[in-house]
Amino acid sequence: MIVMKEGATEEEIQAVVDRVESVGCSAHLSRGDLLTVIGAIGDRDRVAGLGLEGVPGVDHLVPILKPYKLASAQFRKGERTVIGVDGRRVGGGHFSLIAGPCTVESREQTLEVARVVAENGASMLRGGAYKPRTSPYSFQGLGVEGLRLLQEAKDETGLPIVTEVMDARDIEDVVEVADVIQVGARNMQNYPLLSEIGRAGQPVLLKRGLSATLDELLMAAEYVLKEGNPDVMLCERGIRTFETSYRFTLDLLAVPALKELTHLPVIVDPSHAAGRRDWVLPMSLAAAAAGADGIIVEVHNEPDEAICDGPQAISTEHFAEYAEQVARITEVAGKEVSRV
Amino acid sequence: MIVMKEGATEEEIQAVVDRVESVGCSAHLSRGDLLTVIGAIGDRDRVAGLGLEGVPGVDHLVPILKPYKLASAQFRKGERTVIGVDGRRVGGGHFSLIAGPCTVESREQTLEVARVVAENGASMLRGGAYKPRTSPYSFQGLGVEGLRLLQEAKDETGLPIVTEVMDARDIEDVVEVADVIQVGARNMQNYPLLSEIGRAGQPVLLKRGLSATLDELLMAAEYVLKEGNPDVMLCERGIRTFETSYRFTLDLLAVPALKELTHLPVIVDPSHAAGRRDWVLPMSLAAAAAGADGIIVEVHNEPDEAICDGPQAISTEHFAEYAEQVARITEVAGKEVSRV
Amino acid sequence: MIVMKEGATEEEIQAVVDRVESVGCSAHLSRGDLLTVIGAIGDRDRVAGLGLEGVPGVDHLVPILKPYKLASAQFRKGERTVIGVDGRRVGGGHFSLIAGPCTVESREQTLEVARVVAENGASMLRGGAYKPRTSPYSFQGLGVEGLRLLQEAKDETGLPIVTEVMDARDIEDVVEVADVIQVGARNMQNYPLLSEIGRAGQPVLLKRGLSATLDELLMAAEYVLKEGNPDVMLCERGIRTFETSYRFTLDLLAVPALKELTHLPVIVDPSHAAGRRDWVLPMSLAAAAAGADGIIVEVHNEPDEAICDGPQAISTEHFAEYAEQVARITEVAGKEVSRV
Amino acid sequence: MIVMKEGATEEEIQAVVDRVESVGCSAHLSRGDLLTVIGAIGDRDRVAGLGLEGVPGVDHLVPILKPYKLASAQFRKGERTVIGVDGRRVGGGHFSLIAGPCTVESREQTLEVARVVAENGASMLRGGAYKPRTSPYSFQGLGVEGLRLLQEAKDETGLPIVTEVMDARDIEDVVEVADVIQVGARNMQNYPLLSEIGRAGQPVLLKRGLSATLDELLMAAEYVLKEGNPDVMLCERGIRTFETSYRFTLDLLAVPALKELTHLPVIVDPSHAAGRRDWVLPMSLAAAAAGADGIIVEVHNEPDEAICDGPQAISTEHFAEYAEQVARITEVAGKEVSRV
Repeated sequence: MIVMKEGATEEEIQAVVDRVESVGCSAHLSRGDLLTVIGAIGDRDRVAGLGLEGVPGVDHLVPILKPYKLASAQFRKGERTVIGVDGRRVGGGHFSLIAGPCTVESREQTLEVARVVAENGASMLRGGAYKPRTSPYSFQGLGVEGLRLLQEAKDETGLPIVTEVMDARDIEDVVEVADVIQVGARNMQNYPLLSEIGRAGQPVLLKRGLSATLDELLMAAEYVLKEGNPDVMLCERGIRTFETSYRFTLDLLAVPALKELTHLPVIVDPSHAAGRRDWVLPMSLAAAAAGADGIIVEVHNEPDEAICDGPQAISTEHFAEYAEQVARITEVAGKEVSRV
Repeated sequence: MIVMKEGATEEEIQAVVDRVESVGCSAHLSRGDLLTVIGAIGDRDRVAGLGLEGVPGVDHLVPILKPYKLASAQFRKGERTVIGVDGRRVGGGHFSLIAGPCTVESREQTLEVARVVAENGASMLRGGAYKPRTSPYSFQGLGVEGLRLLQEAKDETGLPIVTEVMDARDIEDVVEVADVIQVGARNMQNYPLLSEIGRAGQPVLLKRGLSATLDELLMAAEYVLKEGNPDVMLCERGIRTFETSYRFTLDLLAVPALKELTHLPVIVDPSHAAGRRDWVLPMSLAAAAAGADGIIVEVHNEPDEAICDGPQAISTEHFAEYAEQVARITEVAGKEVSRV
Repeated sequence: MIVMKEGATEEEIQAVVDRVESVGCSAHLSRGDLLTVIGAIGDRDRVAGLGLEGVPGVDHLVPILKPYKLASAQFRKGERTVIGVDGRRVGGGHFSLIAGPCTVESREQTLEVARVVAENGASMLRGGAYKPRTSPYSFQGLGVEGLRLLQEAKDETGLPIVTEVMDARDIEDVVEVADVIQVGARNMQNYPLLSEIGRAGQPVLLKRGLSATLDELLMAAEYVLKEGNPDVMLCERGIRTFETSYRFTLDLLAVPALKELTHLPVIVDPSHAAGRRDWVLPMSLAAAAAGADGIIVEVHNEPDEAICDGPQAISTEHFAEYAEQVARITEVAGKEVSRV
Repeated sequence: MIVMKEGATEEEIQAVVDRVESVGCSAHLSRGDLLTVIGAIGDRDRVAGLGLEGVPGVDHLVPILKPYKLASAQFRKGERTVIGVDGRRVGGGHFSLIAGPCTVESREQTLEVARVVAENGASMLRGGAYKPRTSPYSFQGLGVEGLRLLQEAKDETGLPIVTEVMDARDIEDVVEVADVIQVGARNMQNYPLLSEIGRAGQPVLLKRGLSATLDELLMAAEYVLKEGNPDVMLCERGIRTFETSYRFTLDLLAVPALKELTHLPVIVDPSHAAGRRDWVLPMSLAAAAAGADGIIVEVHNEPDEAICDGPQAISTEHFAEYAEQVARITEVAGKEVSRV
């Protein structure tokens, strides 16, 4: 929709119509008392490519069609994507409880946490071998050694592994171990990385950027889907707002809104936004009640000694109780925690 | 805490110490390798009043004590405020389901909605007689006539009334009918109004401003409390962020965070943030799961004909089902809907 | 513009057309391959009042006409409003340098600051007698006594007075002294106050709310204009964002954007956003360079002793230099500081 | 600074002191009437690594030292970094006017724009060969062929080249041509990319992320500096806020604030925030007035035909006038446009 300025001349209107038609679209005029609106019918990207915003007589453009295609709810005609991960299912009526340490620190820590979450109903194990850290002086992860420890935890517990990749050159190593490749919030618009991950073929957990709109999140998913990989889980993890009482503002309205816009499953990470373990439980329950398809939560055997984000990790000793409460709300919300 | 700049001189440090002591506070020096921090111990407001931010050698100030007193959790030594409203209780283990039309439009609409919500477990009836509208050309509410209709609804159903006041000169009329006086988000920092409402003595439902921090919300509550009125309910109703997929971003982390900061009950309004009725239910469930002490929700008998905010109103025919689902989550969260 | 969902039925489309026509507007259909858009031509408020967002088949609404009328640039057909204030002119090629203390504290302070700014080219004197304070325990202003001191400063220097009113019941007292009535950011959506100030007939300086969009600011101005008072100056004073390095984020893009949307003059307050006097000068120069019609800036004779906001006040001893630099940029920007 | 909760016990306080001392830092107690604050003196990262936020009795932590070292103003003891780029100088009293097309589209366009900006006083030529695009269906840049065209433009005009790199694997190709490597806003926290660019040794223009704080921007710069590359220019390009009247909110307070925090030069990109060419001039003048060390602006020979961001590009025919006005403000601000 091209909204013309009040007082746009007939020549200006005709010039816009001509340009729209020049790219093979049809133009549809709608004249009000005060202003004229031109509907451009045809390929969205071609019209967007005309750069009409700066043309004489044009006030502004209102895009009507969504810019993503494969990610849109219409693409699957209302059917929801259910992703299979080594026997577990994500999406539809299935709820994924993904739990584990923020960072893989040591063999003992990784195996201990893996055992506890496996015994208490987790669907998958999370853990970071490559860590994006705000400071170059912070611990950057164990890298390949961390991947090896995750493999060991998987061998022992049978839990599928969710782990992050930050650099396209590490994908080959990561896919050896990972059942789900995580893209962090800071890399949500790292397009070369998204495309390569799309080509890697593994299911992807894509975190929303700190200030990404839902449309931008879906466009990022589109980069993966376009490479032929249909298995993308979206993850709300808190957005940046003016409020400083918490690290980020967990945006749970994103859950029902994404459910309407897309067929992809929606996971919530309550740990990073809360930043404190006593706020992780209420936000986990809220996420489940809002209809999320899963939760990805940080758990540590000795949270006070954790290298990274210890204050927000649930301790292994409280995990059973945590998982039970989440399951109760999940049930009221009509979903079932997915395990094997 | 006064953080001095690197390289602040001894004279500058001494000058700050002298000024802190000049208002009867004591100064406590902490010297690091790189910089010096001066702790000012004593009355927070006196130190703040010194305007030390601009003084030579001072880098910045870090307030340590919270600026509110009566609203702070410490003030009641961990005990929670439970507000009695005509036999219903708000706070503690009691959950308030406050429901009704956005705007009082007509006798028929008001009574019809009141009957339905009363029959299906609402704790109180909401309805606006004075409406803050962004446009001066929009309907501004029925005023005194609207109050009269609310009184009639109360007489018939027995439900206590929650209604907004925007102008200190209307308080006298409003308190005749209202059991709870609502202060809207746009008036959260209308200090003369807050003080007068504090003096009116009725319980108050105080909505968080669109870009108010939790500290500012509590400072606004302090204006009411300071007048001797202890019965303030805080209300999270969505904040303004960059995301445009919804009207506002419902900030549910405010629920556990406020529970820690204050003894006052915390209510959630899911309607204004969602802006659409199909998103009101999931956000209501999420609010209850997050530990809210109540929900204030818009209900209309003919939402498609509503003068104001119809698209976000739950219809009377779906209210029973709505209330039942909220009650189920409330129960899991360990609270009970309060009725008589 | 009413955007229908993909897959909306003919019946749903017809139902929307019927409702649009039922309020005397005409409906204009535009059918694309994927979806249908209905243009509703006629009175904007009537269509908005239909609440079509919740109607079956409707995806969303896109308002095309701006909601304000008297404030719109079109209303004056491109001519700019120039406001006369006791011989000074605000708007058009005239630049207003409005300077003075944040708060009227004492006779000596008020007269001293007034003299210095008068001698160094200020257009008007600012000073607060009624102060909106976040804390109920902070100094709330001298009230009527403050107004008396402003009158004395006016008598001595001849400078017109800009001062804030927070409570409709104080308007009568304020207009006795004020040449321009200021509405603070926290009261930008205090509609009863705006309407009464509109009726008071004095020029108004209306500050943008902390999270108000430009459209909302113009709607607030419309409340004043609608009462027959055409003399409204808009004031950008910083918005609330995630950045905590300054008190607010000064949004200078608002200057050219408002110039396009409205005929009203645009003033910038650099003091509250900067929060520190050494950042006030660069932001003042930036505001002038961006095309602002004036600056309202805080000046104090003893900033370190100021009761309120001392750290951001320019000291009287530096004011001459400050005013000279602002005047140089103003000149390059094609405006002249207005004095008598 | 570790702020203990009111009512923290002696044991809890002692436990925190012990942990601080266990990592070789010293603890400094400051006891007020209501609460106790513990100053941890020593290495910031070690204390941060303790994860004290979750420990019993701890209320919150207040970091006092800035987390960056090489980027801090103190590191160079108040001296400002001046970067040499093929004879031009960036920083100090030198103002860089970096101009050119958003995207390198064709030989004709690139050479035409390069000639015009070279003749009218530009310091460097900008132009994108690799373009980060929100949509995977948009034009992604000419890649290596684009680099070749930039080389040709450089050979002809002598202007140094500023161009973006998005993928670490392209750095080798880009450094062949680029005099300054640009890191886009979306990659500001792509840490592997930052580190590799640091090792490439070319001057870097680092754009602030859409929701990055100034501290985060400086931490990103630290990733580059830490690799031994001292030549980083920071670039403010607009942040994401609630205001939708423009694409981004240009945050000019960042200019004086960064000048205080760091020794690195600060450039402003007015094009992306404004999104419209008629707002680019006022914001360019505002940036220069605020004390920026340069501007990076989009220029196109046929903006209405541009593949990307045409509406915000200044046309080559207006560039001379644009550059002259910028130079006038730059002069008032005490800087000189740097050319050879």
